[in-house]
Amino acid sequence: MKQTQLPLEIGMLLYPGLTLLDLFGPQTVFSWFANTHLVWKTNDPIVSDTGISVHPTATFETCPRELDILFVPGGFGQQKIMNDSEVLGFLADRASRSRYVTSVCSGSLLLGAAGLLKGYKATSHWSAREGLRMYGAEPVEARVVVDRNRVTGGGVTAGIDFGLVVLAKLRGDDAAKLTQLAMEYDPEPPFNAGSPAAAGPEIVEQAMSFMAAEMEKHTG
Amino acid sequence: MKQTQLPLEIGMLLYPGLTLLDLFGPQTVFSWFANTHLVWKTNDPIVSDTGISVHPTATFETCPRELDILFVPGGFGQQKIMNDSEVLGFLADRASRSRYVTSVCSGSLLLGAAGLLKGYKATSHWSAREGLRMYGAEPVEARVVVDRNRVTGGGVTAGIDFGLVVLAKLRGDDAAKLTQLAMEYDPEPPFNAGSPAAAGPEIVEQAMSFMAAEMEKHTG
Repeated sequence: MKQTQLPLEIGMLLYPGLTLLDLFGPQTVFSWFANTHLVWKTNDPIVSDTGISVHPTATFETCPRELDILFVPGGFGQQKIMNDSEVLGFLADRASRSRYVTSVCSGSLLLGAAGLLKGYKATSHWSAREGLRMYGAEPVEARVVVDRNRVTGGGVTAGIDFGLVVLAKLRGDDAAKLTQLAMEYDPEPPFNAGSPAAAGPEIVEQAMSFMAAEMEKHTG
Repeated sequence: MKQTQLPLEIGMLLYPGLTLLDLFGPQTVFSWFANTHLVWKTNDPIVSDTGISVHPTATFETCPRELDILFVPGGFGQQKIMNDSEVLGFLADRASRSRYVTSVCSGSLLLGAAGLLKGYKATSHWSAREGLRMYGAEPVEARVVVDRNRVTGGGVTAGIDFGLVVLAKLRGDDAAKLTQLAMEYDPEPPFNAGSPAAAGPEIVEQAMSFMAAEMEKHTG
């Protein structure tokens, strides 16, 4: 395994209220093999779900026109851009020339809104998955869904699994394995509560209530 | 589960060359229950391992004096501050008044250098774990190690498991479970390569070679 190939060019959409870990899980997985472009309308920092600011490194104009991976994170803030023609236009334009068109979490709804999942199988955060039907996509309950060059991941932490799947496609299994080892990705969740079925109705209700409060901040 | 308690006050050390996901895995886990302070010597942005810039929100002077959690991420850049009396002094000072003194990845070596792990069991990234002995700590091969109020996590992605363990201690199991569910932490690594034993000698060698090249950038 040598770094003989050109780095992957990855365009990752930013927007206010994105989910920080949706972005930096995959970005970390790709980082040894990639140039990352964090793309937004302007160069002004955006504030993520956890309060951390992220600074764009490119705008819709300066982002490379040909990308290996176009990536869209989810987040409560996406409600405000679901009909934003500038954002959807950027996604549709770059998608037409990207090797892979991808998302994690509810980012798949933005791909859908840009017309990019019509007739594709896809996934999303468990709370948002059924919304994919609205855009002509077929929701699949899976951690990572690959349909032709569309690769979508489930909620938040699924971005790590997603990243390894995409990296293996673009740079081979060994690249993904050495990355997994360097990131010591040998998970041991301390509770069995990572899916609605495992967590049970009371925890689901509590999570929904926290999520509704967050959503309120972004739409209120 | 209501937000009736005051938010947790969390001080997270920044430094150039830290591992981005060491920081933002736990920060995301804690975020619904916490005020995060990203602390460095100055307010100037630092550049992380993946090339992403992170902006401090506090300095060693302005960071709250009493913290619920003092947290240290790992990273190749830590070599340069292992003997930095300003950094080690800050850690020792805040640790004396923090409810939990914590790290992920090779961050435990910095805790050790600050004299904070003498006589404690602790863990680290698999490649750095044995180094803990140098500081009088007892290395343990585990994802998360709790010894009195010291809680240390393994490499990079172990920060998510670590965060859930610490959150459960401070805000109860339900808080950790609803967070795990919201983050859809139901991992499905696409390969079995998350530990040296599982990955096998060839992948270990490749990972070590990539890690050595990164280390070179920070010490060369």
